[in-house]
Amino acid sequence: MMDVQLTVPLMMERAEKFFAKKKVISRTANGIQRLSYGEIGRRTRQLSSILVDFGVEKGDKVGTFAWNHHRHLEAYFAIPGMGAVLHTINIRLDPNQIAYIINHAEDRVLLIDDCFLPLFEQIKDDLKTVKAYIIMTDNEELPPTSLYPVHHYEKILQQGNPTYEFYKEINEQEPAGLCYTSATTGDPKGVLYSHRSIVLHSMALGLADNAAVSESDIAMPVVPMFHVNAWGLPFAAVWFGTTLVMPGPFFTPKLLAELIESEKVTIAAGVPTIWLGLLKELEEKEYDTSSLRAVLCGGSAAPKGVIERFEKKFNIPFVHAYGMTETSPLVVLSRLKSYQSNITDEEKYEYKAKQGLLVPGVEMKVMGKDGEVKWDGKEMGELLLRGPWIASEYHKDDRSHGAFCDGWLYTGDVVTVDEEGFIKIVDRTKDLIKSGGEWISSVDLENALMAHESVFEAAVVPVPHEQWQERPIACVVLKESAKNHVTKEELMQFLAPQFAKWWLPDDILFLDEIPKTSVGKFLKRTLRDQILTHYQSE
Amino acid sequence: MMDVQLTVPLMMERAEKFFAKKKVISRTANGIQRLSYGEIGRRTRQLSSILVDFGVEKGDKVGTFAWNHHRHLEAYFAIPGMGAVLHTINIRLDPNQIAYIINHAEDRVLLIDDCFLPLFEQIKDDLKTVKAYIIMTDNEELPPTSLYPVHHYEKILQQGNPTYEFYKEINEQEPAGLCYTSATTGDPKGVLYSHRSIVLHSMALGLADNAAVSESDIAMPVVPMFHVNAWGLPFAAVWFGTTLVMPGPFFTPKLLAELIESEKVTIAAGVPTIWLGLLKELEEKEYDTSSLRAVLCGGSAAPKGVIERFEKKFNIPFVHAYGMTETSPLVVLSRLKSYQSNITDEEKYEYKAKQGLLVPGVEMKVMGKDGEVKWDGKEMGELLLRGPWIASEYHKDDRSHGAFCDGWLYTGDVVTVDEEGFIKIVDRTKDLIKSGGEWISSVDLENALMAHESVFEAAVVPVPHEQWQERPIACVVLKESAKNHVTKEELMQFLAPQFAKWWLPDDILFLDEIPKTSVGKFLKRTLRDQILTHYQSE
Repeated sequence: MMDVQLTVPLMMERAEKFFAKKKVISRTANGIQRLSYGEIGRRTRQLSSILVDFGVEKGDKVGTFAWNHHRHLEAYFAIPGMGAVLHTINIRLDPNQIAYIINHAEDRVLLIDDCFLPLFEQIKDDLKTVKAYIIMTDNEELPPTSLYPVHHYEKILQQGNPTYEFYKEINEQEPAGLCYTSATTGDPKGVLYSHRSIVLHSMALGLADNAAVSESDIAMPVVPMFHVNAWGLPFAAVWFGTTLVMPGPFFTPKLLAELIESEKVTIAAGVPTIWLGLLKELEEKEYDTSSLRAVLCGGSAAPKGVIERFEKKFNIPFVHAYGMTETSPLVVLSRLKSYQSNITDEEKYEYKAKQGLLVPGVEMKVMGKDGEVKWDGKEMGELLLRGPWIASEYHKDDRSHGAFCDGWLYTGDVVTVDEEGFIKIVDRTKDLIKSGGEWISSVDLENALMAHESVFEAAVVPVPHEQWQERPIACVVLKESAKNHVTKEELMQFLAPQFAKWWLPDDILFLDEIPKTSVGKFLKRTLRDQILTHYQSE
Repeated sequence: MMDVQLTVPLMMERAEKFFAKKKVISRTANGIQRLSYGEIGRRTRQLSSILVDFGVEKGDKVGTFAWNHHRHLEAYFAIPGMGAVLHTINIRLDPNQIAYIINHAEDRVLLIDDCFLPLFEQIKDDLKTVKAYIIMTDNEELPPTSLYPVHHYEKILQQGNPTYEFYKEINEQEPAGLCYTSATTGDPKGVLYSHRSIVLHSMALGLADNAAVSESDIAMPVVPMFHVNAWGLPFAAVWFGTTLVMPGPFFTPKLLAELIESEKVTIAAGVPTIWLGLLKELEEKEYDTSSLRAVLCGGSAAPKGVIERFEKKFNIPFVHAYGMTETSPLVVLSRLKSYQSNITDEEKYEYKAKQGLLVPGVEMKVMGKDGEVKWDGKEMGELLLRGPWIASEYHKDDRSHGAFCDGWLYTGDVVTVDEEGFIKIVDRTKDLIKSGGEWISSVDLENALMAHESVFEAAVVPVPHEQWQERPIACVVLKESAKNHVTKEELMQFLAPQFAKWWLPDDILFLDEIPKTSVGKFLKRTLRDQILTHYQSE
């Protein structure tokens, strides 16, 4: 067979050649712009050629600090398209971490949304490797800035070569992307994606049994482009000629609902927090969401009740998936098997609330206390993964040893596997509650609580206990309408029939919100500290 | 990223683990058998271990000579599963070619359907490398045979190890399969498939925009397993947990129709001849074919009329595809773009009769007389292909030089590309009719003739002409009902408005059948010789 390498530039070339008329619908600060893949392709080549002019070399890192829009999409292809590495920086990190990441990655050039200029004014003196700033903006002129040298994205593009030939002497194992995980403690850790891993992961996204991304789709990545490459959707969508809807900066649930209705979005991807917000919006106001064939949900577990409401109330198919920065991310996706079509509704949502089946191309092992666990839906173990789109180390980081061992990624996620092979995350290894020598899943308790009609969000954390070592405490955010009406006792009675007695939380606290990481995950460590302070002050 | 290799054993392991209950429905000489992927997996491991016991080593070739059934499927995975190369031999070749292929491939072991024993009795003395014969049969005992050493497939399987660990220390570039093209002249040429090419090609088959092979499918490969690995369907189906229906030996259109109805087949794959036969059967007798979501057609061009009848009369979606032994085979597939949904019926079938769009992962160039052709649907050129599942040479064969050059496969197919990028095969480079310095496409004329309601098959071939160099002659097989009713003049009048005058055939001959290759392609060379003899004897 030909020794042809799997590389990112080929994806954009396919869109340009076969789907030049298809559109990218991009919401930016000034409104909605519609660019064809023909235009996107030319602009991408212009940007590639400019980066070459700037002295960016093969293997150099180029950072992006931006929302989801067409310019960010162009950077996605222009940077690997000239042999450099696309480093997407999480805009929600604190300034110290942002500076750390840019220095650690050794970014040569930064592409920044204009709204973030003040932040960079603040940290610019800490950035050791950046040789140029390119500001992505809708405005004719740049605002006054002390960044130097600084360029206007649209103006500099005009100096670029729209027929630049993408760099193709690439070995598929070479890096094309870089993303840092939003660690809850310590410095963020970087994961390098290769051309090969991006291409194979895009193929996986296109499989009929996975996300089935297709030319006929109108795909809206709500998940940020700095969050595991928006789960790879921009790559797959361009390759397959899919219409893209980019929701842009500072979007709200209302705006997402409007985009779904007006652009006839067929598939959207985001974390549970996004879908909780959308659900609220749909329950308050009427929208036409009939175009949606799938809402893809990952990042953390979606509560069964949320899945059920999407499907039953709004007839929107909800697809649960699982992955992490280290896994590109798609590795597990929930789709019922064909012979499960006549199970009861209750069983169906039990399955759909699980993370699902391993996707083709990835291997797994689930290691419990005594080796691999039984597939009985009960025995818990840590999920280990292996595959061509799974990281083998953190970028220039000593902490690789803990996570990568014997050729496997130790995910730190505790799961069960049922008889059908459906994986269910029961906890993070570090969030499991160890009570009297047994394990309690905080996630199971959270999901049960969130299934209560009055509960908006719930997090369960362990607090130290003299006799039992640890005991669970539940923190609940009630829906606006339920506030001051629902009591601790009512929720306790709701939980009681669903769990063994010793699983039930020792206490339920009502909060106004649950502290979250920059990508919407519960910050359980912070929450635990809050709880301990609360009890100490009582 | 992890340096994980793409290998065939992982596909079977996924079926065993996640889809152990799913079935392979296998029609053999004694009737229909239903085996689960759990059983198929154990039997595959047994066969792998037996091949190890037989002394088969990594990289050795193991030949199969069999119809489409579960035992052949087991061989598909057992042979690469222990590091050897699956060599599928075309049962329709003549004995000399079969012996040539086995010797050229250096097959160590042969797996043979019992019905082919007489053939091997005949050629056994010519086989220089075969160390053992394994006979696949439903019967308790083998028939008397002089083959030696000879084994009964089921009996020897029982001595195998059902928990044999597949061999995985494989570099993905190593060979896993071998298939010889049915050349119209000269010895057959071998193409080696790698583990990588088989895995990537299977992924391509699973893409939503391609064949979209899915767990929920019930797939029937009618295309023989010795014909480019049944277009890769068995590999993809096992990987995705798809139910397989294997039509077995000596099937008829009636049998296919019955299988589609009784097994609720959702996708079937075969050459145009198969679908012409099925169409006749469906037109004569009523069957429930409502389960079919796609009929995949490749191998040679399907006439527009056939596609239209399938879709309009029987509501069976017809998917035209293109490939060859050298391309694994899937490289081009016809699916309308989403924005083409409101074209007229006539335009629709014009598109569907084209081979279609290049699939993701493959690159193409179309080289005319003066470089790359314009995408205008008119300019003709030879199709050149490049990609990770495209061969770079013929196995141990000097004839590689003609077909593989500068990193491209020269397909020998003459195509046009329209404004939307749809590829249409107009001819083989060698079958183009060169008349007065211009090119006439024999395929266009054939398709036009086959669209006539009285025509069953038509082939157009060039005959030498003093003044014009070459002129087209049409050979037509009429439908039974039309025989002796339809005249040459009627067909000529039917063609006249569709083509320039100088394109029209100089003559139309009525034949009882068109001579074909073992895989159902027109043998134009033979046909031309027949025509010349016909005119000489007049």
